[in-house]
Amino acid sequence: MLSTKTIVDFQDLIKTRDFGALREQIKNWSAGDVADLMEPLPADQEAVVFRLLPREQAAAVFSYLSDERQEELLKAMAHEEVASILNAMSPDDRTSLLEELPANVIQHMLNLLSPTERAVAAQLLGYAEDSVGRLMTPDFVRIRAPWTVSYALDHIRRYGVDSETMSMIYVIDEDGKLIDDLRIRQILLASPDAHVSDLMDSRFVSLKATDNRETAVQIFRDADLIALPVTDTANALIGIVTVDDILDVAEEEATEDIQKMGGSEALDEPYMKIAITSMVRKRATWLVILFVSEMLTATAMGSFENEIAKAVVLSIFVPLVISSGGNSGSQASTLIIRAMALGEVRLKDWWRVMRREILSGLSLGTILGVIGFIRISAWALLFKSYGPHWFLLALTVGIALVGIVLWGSLSGSMLPFLLRRFGLDPATSSAPFVATLVDVSGLIIYFSVASFILHGTLL
Amino acid sequence: MLSTKTIVDFQDLIKTRDFGALREQIKNWSAGDVADLMEPLPADQEAVVFRLLPREQAAAVFSYLSDERQEELLKAMAHEEVASILNAMSPDDRTSLLEELPANVIQHMLNLLSPTERAVAAQLLGYAEDSVGRLMTPDFVRIRAPWTVSYALDHIRRYGVDSETMSMIYVIDEDGKLIDDLRIRQILLASPDAHVSDLMDSRFVSLKATDNRETAVQIFRDADLIALPVTDTANALIGIVTVDDILDVAEEEATEDIQKMGGSEALDEPYMKIAITSMVRKRATWLVILFVSEMLTATAMGSFENEIAKAVVLSIFVPLVISSGGNSGSQASTLIIRAMALGEVRLKDWWRVMRREILSGLSLGTILGVIGFIRISAWALLFKSYGPHWFLLALTVGIALVGIVLWGSLSGSMLPFLLRRFGLDPATSSAPFVATLVDVSGLIIYFSVASFILHGTLL
Repeated sequence: MLSTKTIVDFQDLIKTRDFGALREQIKNWSAGDVADLMEPLPADQEAVVFRLLPREQAAAVFSYLSDERQEELLKAMAHEEVASILNAMSPDDRTSLLEELPANVIQHMLNLLSPTERAVAAQLLGYAEDSVGRLMTPDFVRIRAPWTVSYALDHIRRYGVDSETMSMIYVIDEDGKLIDDLRIRQILLASPDAHVSDLMDSRFVSLKATDNRETAVQIFRDADLIALPVTDTANALIGIVTVDDILDVAEEEATEDIQKMGGSEALDEPYMKIAITSMVRKRATWLVILFVSEMLTATAMGSFENEIAKAVVLSIFVPLVISSGGNSGSQASTLIIRAMALGEVRLKDWWRVMRREILSGLSLGTILGVIGFIRISAWALLFKSYGPHWFLLALTVGIALVGIVLWGSLSGSMLPFLLRRFGLDPATSSAPFVATLVDVSGLIIYFSVASFILHGTLL
Repeated sequence: MLSTKTIVDFQDLIKTRDFGALREQIKNWSAGDVADLMEPLPADQEAVVFRLLPREQAAAVFSYLSDERQEELLKAMAHEEVASILNAMSPDDRTSLLEELPANVIQHMLNLLSPTERAVAAQLLGYAEDSVGRLMTPDFVRIRAPWTVSYALDHIRRYGVDSETMSMIYVIDEDGKLIDDLRIRQILLASPDAHVSDLMDSRFVSLKATDNRETAVQIFRDADLIALPVTDTANALIGIVTVDDILDVAEEEATEDIQKMGGSEALDEPYMKIAITSMVRKRATWLVILFVSEMLTATAMGSFENEIAKAVVLSIFVPLVISSGGNSGSQASTLIIRAMALGEVRLKDWWRVMRREILSGLSLGTILGVIGFIRISAWALLFKSYGPHWFLLALTVGIALVGIVLWGSLSGSMLPFLLRRFGLDPATSSAPFVATLVDVSGLIIYFSVASFILHGTLL
């Protein structure tokens, strides 16, 4: 029997949010003692204490509770207040104190709660916001390997009615671990006396609740299935994810990537609905970053002020030359970012990508360089533009273009690798960022080629 | 009885590919005569003739054929050769000669052919390559309204085994028209003696086979269903589309949009697999178009050559000023293109979008303008850069930035509307195209502001 003092002490620890101390004190107690401690607490506090238990202990305490107390506890876990108390923890504390909930609790929770309650409770599951754990639903049917086919069919008829995905039936072992998936047609066509184990091939695709949503999209794309089973870290089957939810995720992820590539933060709301002030804030951040980086062009241009004063004609081609680098850079970074998002290109491919981009960049640069050379020569011959040294000027622009487009393609394709290598999202504003980077370095390339070729004539 | 001559004449018309004349001759014949004509032809030619029949006539002829001849005909329609004969038609001929196949033929065809054969035959269906008609599969169960629930259940057990989507059952009328969808659970829970019609609410979401794939993605996103029924132009149920195929479509469409927005043609192949030559060709097209458009900047800069010669310091800020316009333009166009793809923004919203962009553009321009003004003033005061008229120069850059960012946001947001208005894909290279457009107009804005403010001092 716990003393009133112990209980009051616990309520104090909860009120003062000293969750670390609370967890420390009870972590070696028996399941019965913890259940006794929780009994007199208000439902919200009971849920908080339960959520702080280590995984194994939580499983034991939950089994110890009566059906009514289990239900009461799970309902309490869907209270906004409980979610907000635990959400208020520091990220460090969250990671160290909130372990994954045991499979028996998650399954009961998903089955008991309405979709709305589930959305609140999802925050307490211990799965990150962009993880598969937040997408799963409990509408699936599981059967056991030793069952006969006719027994399995009875079970499916009884429990499968609500399931959107009766076409796939999951086989679990005595510990709740997922061991196979079967198509309903395999079961319907089998002899009623056969055993489920006779139909099994133990080959199946599954998701981990801790998997990233983007990973799930990739797996679904390859699997061509309408639903996939979700397991916890101990391989216990805890839910399924259906492809209609994955479609929404894929569209959201593509939207985020597209908006980031376009040089904006992800809006997270439809364009027509977001408040103008929020939209301006989200767009201003990156525009300002790009603007400040682009100020380096003023510095670069400033250092070539003498050259420009001597040969104003050089400045005429500055926008043309640097924008070509920017365009080829955005192009390359966009292609690589999307290929990464689709899983076609991985970190270790950087060297193969670089080789491809050296070839592409040289070809593209040569094409633009030749066009640029022809344009300047033509204008010089037709309209007597650009003075007596037009040929050297045309050569300068042509050669600079090869270098700048090559450099644009290379830096555009490598930046996403760098960003990902350091754990950042490759989509983060890469295309405009590459354009800015290549603007600055493009100026340096252009004026260096110019001083080399035009030295002694224009310069 | 047809004469040998008639048959030989027909073989000639097929060999000479004179499909128009062929169709003209037989279009008023009875179903029996056409069937007799087709009988002695080789299977490939038989399929070609059948495909050229007007829709109503094709339905009649098909019903007239024996089961074996129906099957033989449908198998022939999956021959590569038949597909290539009909594909070789000019687009005009295709539209005028190849009508949609009648529902009875499509259903038989989908059921009879393997997925690989179906891919070949899909070209002959009369549905465009990016239409829903190309995505549909025959794995669905249809029932009739007058049936009893127990009869419907028997039917589902017999024919639903192969269906991936037994969870939805479709109700058709005596003409094969779709009249409702039912969840399997509604049928399972209903009294066996009830009639299907008692369960119906006649509310359902369906796709047309002629619908665009992108439309299908939008409808699926809103419907949150695992499959949707597909009807032909006469509302006959001819197939279903499952959401796992739609996921692939959504990803492909997003990839195409992203690649186009990044200033490239859609690669249509994974980055690592596409041949370098194809990739260079697809990337070069747009880079060259952008490069040639960007040549206008050289013309614009050339017309301000005197101003630059007088005030070289002006040229120093050219890249900074015009890139800000480019960035804000790409940002705006990216946001609008994605919002259009998601169906959040429609053509008729252009005016509301314009109002939002005027506000956003002014705010963003003011933010950048103030930063630019401060940067120039600070450098002038700290490093004595930019000469005695630094204040007017700072003012020029600041005011030009407001105008250019506003103009960038406006043109970036309106170009997608223009493209779509003229039936083009708004994603087509808009972001870099806007950047180029704004580069040219940005120069004009910048130098006009400069001549106004610096007149009498620097200029």
